[in-house]
Amino acid sequence: MKVLVINCGSSSLKYQVLDMTNEVLLCKGLVERIGMEGAVITHEKIGMDKFKLVVPMKDHKEAIGHVLEAVQDENHGVVKSMDEIGAVGHRVVHAGEKYAHSVLITEEVLKALEECVELAPLHNPPNLAGIAACQALMPKTPMVAVFDTAFHQTMPPESYIYAIPYEYYQKHGIRRYGFHGTSHKYVAERAADIMNCALDDLKIITCHLGNGASVSAIKRGKCIDTSMGFTPLEGLVMGTRSGDIDPAIVTYIRDKENLEAGVANDILNKKSGVLGISGISSDFRDIEEAAAEGNERAQLALKVFAHKVRFYIGAYIAEMNGVDAIVFTAGVGENDIEMRDIICNDLGNLGIKLDLVKNKVRGKETIISRDDSRVKIILIPTNEELMIARDTYDITKNLK
Amino acid sequence: MKVLVINCGSSSLKYQVLDMTNEVLLCKGLVERIGMEGAVITHEKIGMDKFKLVVPMKDHKEAIGHVLEAVQDENHGVVKSMDEIGAVGHRVVHAGEKYAHSVLITEEVLKALEECVELAPLHNPPNLAGIAACQALMPKTPMVAVFDTAFHQTMPPESYIYAIPYEYYQKHGIRRYGFHGTSHKYVAERAADIMNCALDDLKIITCHLGNGASVSAIKRGKCIDTSMGFTPLEGLVMGTRSGDIDPAIVTYIRDKENLEAGVANDILNKKSGVLGISGISSDFRDIEEAAAEGNERAQLALKVFAHKVRFYIGAYIAEMNGVDAIVFTAGVGENDIEMRDIICNDLGNLGIKLDLVKNKVRGKETIISRDDSRVKIILIPTNEELMIARDTYDITKNLK
Repeated sequence: MKVLVINCGSSSLKYQVLDMTNEVLLCKGLVERIGMEGAVITHEKIGMDKFKLVVPMKDHKEAIGHVLEAVQDENHGVVKSMDEIGAVGHRVVHAGEKYAHSVLITEEVLKALEECVELAPLHNPPNLAGIAACQALMPKTPMVAVFDTAFHQTMPPESYIYAIPYEYYQKHGIRRYGFHGTSHKYVAERAADIMNCALDDLKIITCHLGNGASVSAIKRGKCIDTSMGFTPLEGLVMGTRSGDIDPAIVTYIRDKENLEAGVANDILNKKSGVLGISGISSDFRDIEEAAAEGNERAQLALKVFAHKVRFYIGAYIAEMNGVDAIVFTAGVGENDIEMRDIICNDLGNLGIKLDLVKNKVRGKETIISRDDSRVKIILIPTNEELMIARDTYDITKNLK
Repeated sequence: MKVLVINCGSSSLKYQVLDMTNEVLLCKGLVERIGMEGAVITHEKIGMDKFKLVVPMKDHKEAIGHVLEAVQDENHGVVKSMDEIGAVGHRVVHAGEKYAHSVLITEEVLKALEECVELAPLHNPPNLAGIAACQALMPKTPMVAVFDTAFHQTMPPESYIYAIPYEYYQKHGIRRYGFHGTSHKYVAERAADIMNCALDDLKIITCHLGNGASVSAIKRGKCIDTSMGFTPLEGLVMGTRSGDIDPAIVTYIRDKENLEAGVANDILNKKSGVLGISGISSDFRDIEEAAAEGNERAQLALKVFAHKVRFYIGAYIAEMNGVDAIVFTAGVGENDIEMRDIICNDLGNLGIKLDLVKNKVRGKETIISRDDSRVKIILIPTNEELMIARDTYDITKNLK
């Protein structure tokens, strides 16, 4: 069966088609500037050159129309007709406490996800728009929703309950949800494979370090804690997000800077993180370049980022009473040799020893700890699309 | 030399007189309801019964007047005249980045502390009122300010800089300061004595668990990180304070509950913590009683509290690349056998093993880890007043 994977943002859309009989990627692409001037689709059939098409797309439905055309294109396509696509898998950010697993999309599921919009006002609406557009264009194809929050639903209450009035949890659903779940799950499973161990026998800390960043503690295959919280703002320092701060700062900033309602929250989401400290960029490559040239605030931004990752690694070692493997993934985790070095430096008494030579690698699945390191340090490129395709395939393969 | 120690709150005041030639406590007392109906002073000369005096006190100056009377009282006093008091030590909560040590109070110091009022609007004004009252009544006696923040000034920038726009640090002084410094310093020094080691050779995690609660990482005698931040709201779950939460929650609560400016902050400070989760009390004894009777929210409150202490212990072990001793102090830390048990449970792989029999002790300086525990777990009753008296004595003894 061939599976189409759709990941809709507010003005962009990523897609892939995979053949799930052998888990082979057939094509992938990106639509940008949906509903804006200069909308463009970039499509790549694996093994061929990319092609770009600038074409007006007023909404997600038109965008998905172009995706389907590209997928069926005589030269660049991978199917002759959409009938060959057995199912569509959709990434959906927030399922609240409703789903701990991927689900076949039904009327009931859509209603439940509408109720989660309040929890993820920026992310769930475009996800739902993508589902509606696909349903309109492929009315007979089964569709599956795969949630960023689902993997974290195994957390125990002591990890997800905040010490605020309990009725805020009951009335408003304010609790830790966690995000990047598909990625954390994927790399944890890969780590077990690489270590030739059962996931059930392992304690793993997965560090998803991209522009958004989170850490998870995974014990016997189950997430028991994660650094993102009610929203993706909590936890690690990120490209533009503050991560953990004294909650009193939100009110203090608002008062001192005379900010309108909601602006403080925007600043913490969009103008903070390593961008806020360095004043240079949210991109680690820019910051590292400036740091190498002696820029002190760039150096500080890198130190603060690494400090927080180390902090969570330690915290999760205590929560699990030990750790067998630490995994690095996502943009920074996969490619930033220097950052991995700073994070893992001086943790030898905890049995964590990075091999500085093996660490000189980018984007490749490999063990980068020393042979005498009790804890394996593993670099694993994430593959959320494959996970979405797998769940989609598993849920739909016996439908007909 | 005899030293008077003063710790002024907004409507209360604690005091002690110590003879610093041998560090002996001579008397101590508490004034409550200053400026309110039913103001009362409770005084205790060591070795004698307490006496209580209900007497109107309209402000801190009148309150300190009664303290001085009690200290010189024919029956309950410990000096014949105030001339015998060589110096007064004042606890001051917030010194910003101005002082990393205790200081002799001068006009310049008072001006600097006035500038810190903005950072501690609830705490510094009564501290300053207490100093002013003492100066008026004892104009010739040297006075020393001892700061809750001072001990934490050794933190490196990666511990104290938040990932928010850097100008907020420059303009508004928004950074991690940390509190309870006098207590953390005292118990760290005691731990080194008890272990018969130099503080310089040790990595210590000090858990000050009272109604307010914080943890510090102390490496070679210097604080390198602490859980309270810009204000005492951050970090551990406390009696009524939330500790760490997703910063987005502040805005979300305000919007959902239609709160006036500042009310969300009040709720996080006064109606959260174990009180907020349990709905019962901020007092751990009440919560434990309810938990024992099967109250699930009380049980949850205790679990969430312990979870966060374990979290910070692990985080600080990573920051220091190991730990030699974990210290418990303050109300809960000194007296709550069950809570220490939950916190230290299942940390054996980190070399932390509580002795369940030795742990059955309250308020007594003693090692409570097993003999085969690599990390010593030590119960140490805190004594902030003694630390204040010591600094006061050291700074003033050679003045004349």
